[in-house]
Amino acid sequence: MDAKANAIVAQSGGPTAVINASACGVVQEAAKSGKIGRVIGAINGILGVLKEELFDISAEDSASVEALKQTPAAAIGSCRYKLKSLEESKADFDRVLDVFKAHNIRYFFYAGGNDSMDTADKVNKLAADSGYELVCMGIPKTVDNDLACTDHCPGYPSVAKYVATCAMEAGRDTEALYTADTCTILEVMGRNAGWIAAATGLAAKCPEDAPHLVYVPETGFAWDRFVRDVEEVLKRLGRVFIVAGEGLKDDKGEYITADKGAFAKDSFGHVQLGGVAEMLKAVIEKEVKIKTRFNKLGTNQRSAMHFASLTDVNEAYMCGQMAVKYAMEGVNGKMVTLVREGGPQYKCTTGLAELRDVANGEKKVPSEFINDKGNHITDAMRDYVRPLVQGEAPVTIGGDGLPVFMRFERKPLEKKLPKYL
Amino acid sequence: MDAKANAIVAQSGGPTAVINASACGVVQEAAKSGKIGRVIGAINGILGVLKEELFDISAEDSASVEALKQTPAAAIGSCRYKLKSLEESKADFDRVLDVFKAHNIRYFFYAGGNDSMDTADKVNKLAADSGYELVCMGIPKTVDNDLACTDHCPGYPSVAKYVATCAMEAGRDTEALYTADTCTILEVMGRNAGWIAAATGLAAKCPEDAPHLVYVPETGFAWDRFVRDVEEVLKRLGRVFIVAGEGLKDDKGEYITADKGAFAKDSFGHVQLGGVAEMLKAVIEKEVKIKTRFNKLGTNQRSAMHFASLTDVNEAYMCGQMAVKYAMEGVNGKMVTLVREGGPQYKCTTGLAELRDVANGEKKVPSEFINDKGNHITDAMRDYVRPLVQGEAPVTIGGDGLPVFMRFERKPLEKKLPKYL
Repeated sequence: MDAKANAIVAQSGGPTAVINASACGVVQEAAKSGKIGRVIGAINGILGVLKEELFDISAEDSASVEALKQTPAAAIGSCRYKLKSLEESKADFDRVLDVFKAHNIRYFFYAGGNDSMDTADKVNKLAADSGYELVCMGIPKTVDNDLACTDHCPGYPSVAKYVATCAMEAGRDTEALYTADTCTILEVMGRNAGWIAAATGLAAKCPEDAPHLVYVPETGFAWDRFVRDVEEVLKRLGRVFIVAGEGLKDDKGEYITADKGAFAKDSFGHVQLGGVAEMLKAVIEKEVKIKTRFNKLGTNQRSAMHFASLTDVNEAYMCGQMAVKYAMEGVNGKMVTLVREGGPQYKCTTGLAELRDVANGEKKVPSEFINDKGNHITDAMRDYVRPLVQGEAPVTIGGDGLPVFMRFERKPLEKKLPKYL
Repeated sequence: MDAKANAIVAQSGGPTAVINASACGVVQEAAKSGKIGRVIGAINGILGVLKEELFDISAEDSASVEALKQTPAAAIGSCRYKLKSLEESKADFDRVLDVFKAHNIRYFFYAGGNDSMDTADKVNKLAADSGYELVCMGIPKTVDNDLACTDHCPGYPSVAKYVATCAMEAGRDTEALYTADTCTILEVMGRNAGWIAAATGLAAKCPEDAPHLVYVPETGFAWDRFVRDVEEVLKRLGRVFIVAGEGLKDDKGEYITADKGAFAKDSFGHVQLGGVAEMLKAVIEKEVKIKTRFNKLGTNQRSAMHFASLTDVNEAYMCGQMAVKYAMEGVNGKMVTLVREGGPQYKCTTGLAELRDVANGEKKVPSEFINDKGNHITDAMRDYVRPLVQGEAPVTIGGDGLPVFMRFERKPLEKKLPKYL
């Protein structure tokens, strides 16, 4: 490959605490390889490629690049712009290749979820069909932890550690003030998969501990069972702490609530969720007649760098680094996966999966991770998540007592093509 | 005073990350004094006194007592039970004194807000009138930071540090994904005072930084100005991050929203708030037509031990410790206050205020801490809050990667009186 071949690194979908650590791995390993010219950032994911909004990460301060490991969200920018099939989104795909050619991009490192792996796969095919030498590598990223082919997804361990801690802390709050505020609901993310909600179960180390009830979308939710669950805990402890995934569904697979308003669907056509906690609260106050509060962490759960998992930061970095190493070894069209090695001690290495297998897959919480009553987790889930939340990622604290995050200078690369989008 | 005189320590109102540190200060200083028999915990505040539900903290493991400094919420238990005037709540006040007499309680250390200081003051008066030797000392506690006579309240610095960090982090999330999720609202606590919302302003160190708009209850809120503010930030940055105190009020002093449901009022008759974020979101989506999310940290903000302010933990401990020291010096009927000494370096010592002055006072965010537009803070507010959020309180992390919190054994003291309540 051309010794001056450049690489693009891009970030897609919902931010996490560690997607920047993956970008850091790409940038630092690319520099180390000596085989890549410049590492170029595509501002706001594939949108930046389409708009030719690019900047030279290699020209950024090396301290900024290093500080990516301590900065949440997506420092290169992200988007939810979806490319459909090669036929339906032909103009977009052609444009991507035109931009790559114009800037001599021969490597495309794309950190994202299954939609992003789909895009990377299709760009790769198009390049191959048109005889343009290109290496496309996927880097897993999603707090939802629902990507196929990988033991877990970078981003998930940090949100798991944070929400479990939040359940412990707010659980102690309810325990302290149950005479007034008897019930608390913690609503967490997870549209279709309950991995985040399930992680909070780790906080319950004895019967007194919160959460007392954990509901995931994988288990058919029924109001009568729910009310019975709440009454049972109330009778036993005098208080109730509930964790609910935002995407709870009934036995027929329908969301138990859905906002019907103007923004009910996001740009991917997904139904926008929210309001599960409010609905549970209303039912508890009506049926069980106890005062109920709810906490909805929202985007704070996926950006909680201040208590991120060190294991997660290290593995996210490794995914970025290995994407480059594999590419240097001639691998193409794959996503880096995390592989949990057997044995009593947790050990995680990387593997590879076909981009299209990740694009078409989805990994839900298996039934053996949820108890028979469908209202808490099992030891199998605890064993799965415990190693992931080990260690606290270092965060530099500034003179104002708050974390210090980096921001790229983002000096734009000169545009070489006509405007698009 | 009787050498075997016992002390009660009790906690009241909404929990904080550091009210247990104050209890730790009381217990350890009481032991050191050599003049107090046992330190007795009243389970769930004044309710525990009324019900004679007491336990001997002096008999608890000293490691548990030490671990109070790292445990959020209220380890002795809290309540919102309000005693009214000495006439209206005569039976309750008489019962308090009866319980004190039955257990030879000569010291009453009460950590709470202005309602608790009122209770302590009245118990003190009743004891004096009936010739029962009793020392009542108040220890300030409230995340709302609205107590009179003290520079700030233990509990506030920790919530300030946490919500400012949350604004930074979720702000980076919005910055990363503004092409899809353009606006985010962070709703924080603060019924009548905007101290918590104002603290998030510290996170904005440059024009790009969140929060871009900060609204406190002290400033009359108007929908037309709000929409204009949002449009102005949107035009400038392409995204908007807003912090709203839960108790926003219009120019006439009416809450801009109030839940009218079954639990609209808490047991003190306060209107229960919530829904400010939802209302702002609805207006933005309708008027400005940008997708808007909201995060509502709820009780997680006041229990966030995992990122509490070390300054706060130390000062909370000092308040508990000094309450005992002052009592040993013969002080009675006062609340310990925090006094910010002058000079370029932050230095905080303690002072004393009349319980009744605290009970009848309220400290709102002064107008010079809020900008002229009423949509952000001034440097005066930054200078006020910056020293308070310095340092990170140590938290022991267990083998499961989560914080370790203590729980008292709470071996009940034998009841000596007939049942009451």
